[in-house]
Amino acid sequence: MKEFLEDINKAFESKVRLGIMSMLMVNNEVDFNTFKEMLGLTDGNLASHLKTLEGLGYIEVKKEFIERKPRTTYSRTCEGEQAFKEHLQALEAFIKQATD
Amino acid sequence: MKEFLEDINKAFESKVRLGIMSMLMVNNEVDFNTFKEMLGLTDGNLASHLKTLEGLGYIEVKKEFIERKPRTTYSRTCEGEQAFKEHLQALEAFIKQATD
Repeated sequence: MKEFLEDINKAFESKVRLGIMSMLMVNNEVDFNTFKEMLGLTDGNLASHLKTLEGLGYIEVKKEFIERKPRTTYSRTCEGEQAFKEHLQALEAFIKQATD
Repeated sequence: MKEFLEDINKAFESKVRLGIMSMLMVNNEVDFNTFKEMLGLTDGNLASHLKTLEGLGYIEVKKEFIERKPRTTYSRTCEGEQAFKEHLQALEAFIKQATD
């Protein structure tokens, strides 16, 4: 049992963070409001999960001004991509043994 | 995205609880020390996760004396079994769309 759980990354236990990383695997850049809409979250909740992933070095933040309006976009890092892929593989292996 | 995440049960986000429920799907009864060994946890950490699952009605606790020694065993409830199966299905669907 332990060996199946060891590779499940605690950073991605939260389904919000699963959602954030998924969106960043498919899109090179996602802005704050798109996350908010797609995941159905409040600003505070979303910001806190994004900060955690940024702190772990799994995502990068870019702040810019477009037509004088601030815009914050996020992208995955190489490390984040690798960690997320490993997490999905660990989940798959776990489900396989749980449902076999 | 939202629809894939909605069916992921927050109660099972934690990998410790994934492990507990998995063990209770395969075995009708598991005692405290077996969980501890199989999952590699401290008493406090394990007890807290078991209490959460009990509070949700997903597992049941039985306390008894065997040769004058106290023994605490746990089993899944019907509700817990159903909820866990739905969670695994939701995780599977999520992984499928994330890796397709």
